[in-house]
Amino acid sequence: MKLLASSSVASLAVLASAQNTSTVDTSPFPTDAPVPGNYTGGLRPQVHFSPPQGFMNDPNGVFYQNGTYHLYYQYNPAALVAGNQHWGHATSQDLYRWENQPIALYPPVENSGVFSGSAVTDPNNTSGFFPDQDDGVVAIFTTNYGDANGGSGLQTQDIAYSRDGGYTFEWYDQNPVIDYNSSQFRDPKVVRYGDEWVMVITFSQEFTISIFKSPDLKNWTFASNFTDAGLLGAQYECPNMVQIPTRDHDTGEEGEMLDLLTLSIQPGAPLGGSVTEYFIGRFNGTHFNPIDRATRLNDFAKDNYAGQFFYGTPEGQDPIDIAWASNWQYTNRVPTASEGWRSAMTVPRSNYVTNATRIGWTLVTEPFNIDAITNTTIEEKSWTGNGSAIVDYSQVESNALHFSINVTGINQTELGTNPTLNFTFMSPVSGESIRNGFLFSGDNPFWVDRSGVNGFVDDIFWNTKFSVADIYNGTVWNVEGVIDRSIFEVFVDRGIHAATVLYYPDEPLTLLSVASRDLSPNAKVDLAVWSLESGWADTAEATPAQSGNYTRV
Amino acid sequence: MKLLASSSVASLAVLASAQNTSTVDTSPFPTDAPVPGNYTGGLRPQVHFSPPQGFMNDPNGVFYQNGTYHLYYQYNPAALVAGNQHWGHATSQDLYRWENQPIALYPPVENSGVFSGSAVTDPNNTSGFFPDQDDGVVAIFTTNYGDANGGSGLQTQDIAYSRDGGYTFEWYDQNPVIDYNSSQFRDPKVVRYGDEWVMVITFSQEFTISIFKSPDLKNWTFASNFTDAGLLGAQYECPNMVQIPTRDHDTGEEGEMLDLLTLSIQPGAPLGGSVTEYFIGRFNGTHFNPIDRATRLNDFAKDNYAGQFFYGTPEGQDPIDIAWASNWQYTNRVPTASEGWRSAMTVPRSNYVTNATRIGWTLVTEPFNIDAITNTTIEEKSWTGNGSAIVDYSQVESNALHFSINVTGINQTELGTNPTLNFTFMSPVSGESIRNGFLFSGDNPFWVDRSGVNGFVDDIFWNTKFSVADIYNGTVWNVEGVIDRSIFEVFVDRGIHAATVLYYPDEPLTLLSVASRDLSPNAKVDLAVWSLESGWADTAEATPAQSGNYTRV
Repeated sequence: MKLLASSSVASLAVLASAQNTSTVDTSPFPTDAPVPGNYTGGLRPQVHFSPPQGFMNDPNGVFYQNGTYHLYYQYNPAALVAGNQHWGHATSQDLYRWENQPIALYPPVENSGVFSGSAVTDPNNTSGFFPDQDDGVVAIFTTNYGDANGGSGLQTQDIAYSRDGGYTFEWYDQNPVIDYNSSQFRDPKVVRYGDEWVMVITFSQEFTISIFKSPDLKNWTFASNFTDAGLLGAQYECPNMVQIPTRDHDTGEEGEMLDLLTLSIQPGAPLGGSVTEYFIGRFNGTHFNPIDRATRLNDFAKDNYAGQFFYGTPEGQDPIDIAWASNWQYTNRVPTASEGWRSAMTVPRSNYVTNATRIGWTLVTEPFNIDAITNTTIEEKSWTGNGSAIVDYSQVESNALHFSINVTGINQTELGTNPTLNFTFMSPVSGESIRNGFLFSGDNPFWVDRSGVNGFVDDIFWNTKFSVADIYNGTVWNVEGVIDRSIFEVFVDRGIHAATVLYYPDEPLTLLSVASRDLSPNAKVDLAVWSLESGWADTAEATPAQSGNYTRV
Repeated sequence: MKLLASSSVASLAVLASAQNTSTVDTSPFPTDAPVPGNYTGGLRPQVHFSPPQGFMNDPNGVFYQNGTYHLYYQYNPAALVAGNQHWGHATSQDLYRWENQPIALYPPVENSGVFSGSAVTDPNNTSGFFPDQDDGVVAIFTTNYGDANGGSGLQTQDIAYSRDGGYTFEWYDQNPVIDYNSSQFRDPKVVRYGDEWVMVITFSQEFTISIFKSPDLKNWTFASNFTDAGLLGAQYECPNMVQIPTRDHDTGEEGEMLDLLTLSIQPGAPLGGSVTEYFIGRFNGTHFNPIDRATRLNDFAKDNYAGQFFYGTPEGQDPIDIAWASNWQYTNRVPTASEGWRSAMTVPRSNYVTNATRIGWTLVTEPFNIDAITNTTIEEKSWTGNGSAIVDYSQVESNALHFSINVTGINQTELGTNPTLNFTFMSPVSGESIRNGFLFSGDNPFWVDRSGVNGFVDDIFWNTKFSVADIYNGTVWNVEGVIDRSIFEVFVDRGIHAATVLYYPDEPLTLLSVASRDLSPNAKVDLAVWSLESGWADTAEATPAQSGNYTRV
């Protein structure tokens, strides 16, 4: 890595003035300390990762080694809009309590950007960078040689290596490792397959995922293309390929291992802007062969993009991913700029594939390891038939909850005319709300409505209503979710469907109401609500100068 | 056809009381006269087809013969919700001025329904039904043997034949012609291919389009399956296959003929509920082979389903389709019940396929033959750079407009910070509005926002904002549309993108404002607005008892 950074530290005031520009500034931040951050804002997620300040997008190079998860991310530390792409860096032992690290990769030359990519550990020193260690890390990424207006230019695939486990990187002196003289060739994600490294990468505007192979991460050979698949949008970005277990959703019985190929498209999503889709298939060492021609979407809302699977998680564990919780249609305008930051990641999620009744093959995605920050059970209540619960969580310091609602034993012949299980998060102060519910008739939809939250609601791209046909299971209905100041993630029927929903309230939502109506008399509703600890709260005590921020010791 | 109907005529009062029930009533209407209708309501489209009264869904059996277009449709004449499915019937010479005809097909037995299907002309008497004529018509459809609760039951493929050109049908006495003892097997669409009849039909919950072949429309042989393709939703419905020309979108140069396979899914659309997708490929007589693995959607909004191509239109003419302009998530609740009807069809559209810059292969769809009802040019205005126009169309009796806006000559380097071409339809009385616009930056989206219209806006499935990345063409921007009391159809970049958008205003929208801002100084905006004649207005004069309705002479 070329070290272009000085030791000056940009203030939040500078950031605020920069929020409407993408002027490139490659050197405002120290290389030897994390960018400082204030995590106390009312919109600032407490159990989700967000950057200390400035603008973040795609997760990059996520990997696990020796008990530590590393998260790199597309980062503009100098402004509150995309541009000037660095690789920010943070580490965690549990994926909720994050320690911000110094910026890992800086743009190498003026007007360039370190675009998205991946990272791998190289314990066997296949790369030759690590003759004396077994914890070497190699980052593989796109360098974009842009113009002064922030436009894209030549995109080459470059690598950098870290001899200190991923904290600092050296730029490989023979870069680029792949160069097709293309301005639309990016986002390499590398995995280990047998004795080889395998890269999936997009020729974005050719609707092509290319697969390359390498013995050493330096010399790459083209293997195959997977083209013109799924919803094309207008650009392919951020592919991932990961081995994925298959499992019966009801019995838990294990099936064969398959391969999951994910692809993000931007723009051109059905709901506008950006979305991630996936293909289930088998990778044979050179080609990805999907099991069918189907197109499947990761999320039924609008704020989930560029998810990446952690490299190097323990054998036998379901793959874990984390995604950028935003949408390019509005990410540069959302109101968190008032707090000096923009964009959060989803919670980490575990994943497997199942062949679900009526749905067919589908990705099951659920929050991973959330017990790590679960604080107190603040409500447990069950009832039969019609009933309700009110949960006042204004005393939960983080303002973050985890909840679960199960409805079981519905007798279809005894339902009333409008059978529902609805739940609403609201602010008693402003009256703002996020409404949600199951409708147990027709196509049995589950729906989310963020139109009752004031912030940003007038934006022309801010869709407010999302729904999914929850036809998977006619007898057991489950919804689980995490709500965290400005981000709501909901998982329906134990991860068969998932939605990531941003919201920007004027006042914190502090009241949860749950009610069932017109259910069959013996249908049972089980509600559980847990408060979550802030992943950032300890920081003020540890390092008072950086409110709510962890710094590397 | 079994004739179960009596000559009684249900009143609108009866319909109004029935709007919240799907109680089956197989015999409320005359067989020898059209169901009467009142087309004067403030929400009633004037240049779109809607049923005289009661509930309509899919277009069925649409064909053209001897100068007349025939439209059959899924019809519940006895209630304002789906159920009790008949085939309604209407005819037109221009696809805008419709003449309601007597109901064409009645449910054969109690609790049954005549579900969706198609119709063909059989001039060579392949069927044997027409020994003495060359204008025989055969309808091919699904009979659903349901239960008393309106649920689906056995679904068989049946045929009926008409010796009077499609007005009255006889039930084939050897029905069913295909029976797989399935309750999810429906919506046969038959086309002529070479010397054979070819049917596409779905096994809905198996995500399968099956292709059958027949020499005589009676004996059908399985040919192939096309399975697990596209967005699966939870059910496949209403497939269509049609030969489609390819053409350069800019030069008009003709390419090879391809085949278009359309498929509607319900529920499970990305925006919730129902949506239509399509595959471009080649039919070889037995198999449909798509040109790629892509999934393409017909519409970027939420109100377009089950489109069907007219059989028998002249050789060399682009295929014409018409679709149901609604969504199963809310169609049974929309506020037009107050006027005694629910659901309209789209305008007829002509279609071809092009390989568009950045978009790739895509279906181009545009209003067909709208000149037939174009009345007066009520505005023509051009300007350069920033400018605006206000069009008061309160004097347009139909309240229906056709409009076109072109923006040409944009110089990307001279754009201001927020370059837009926005246009709004509004009511000066209520302040309600539909807002729309191009944003000439970022991904160059075109967007539609119906959130400013009061009616139905609180429905939890009523998405209000729709957008598409209009990255096709960086120098010429075009939007064309038809707005008609409660239905708005918009076509972007000469049909590269299309949206069908219902809206239910308290007061009629009568004012169109158009404004450009931050364009480059020499960019040119050309606006044209035409009033449209009501397709139903003459009826009151012709048959005073049926307001605004045509009856068969």
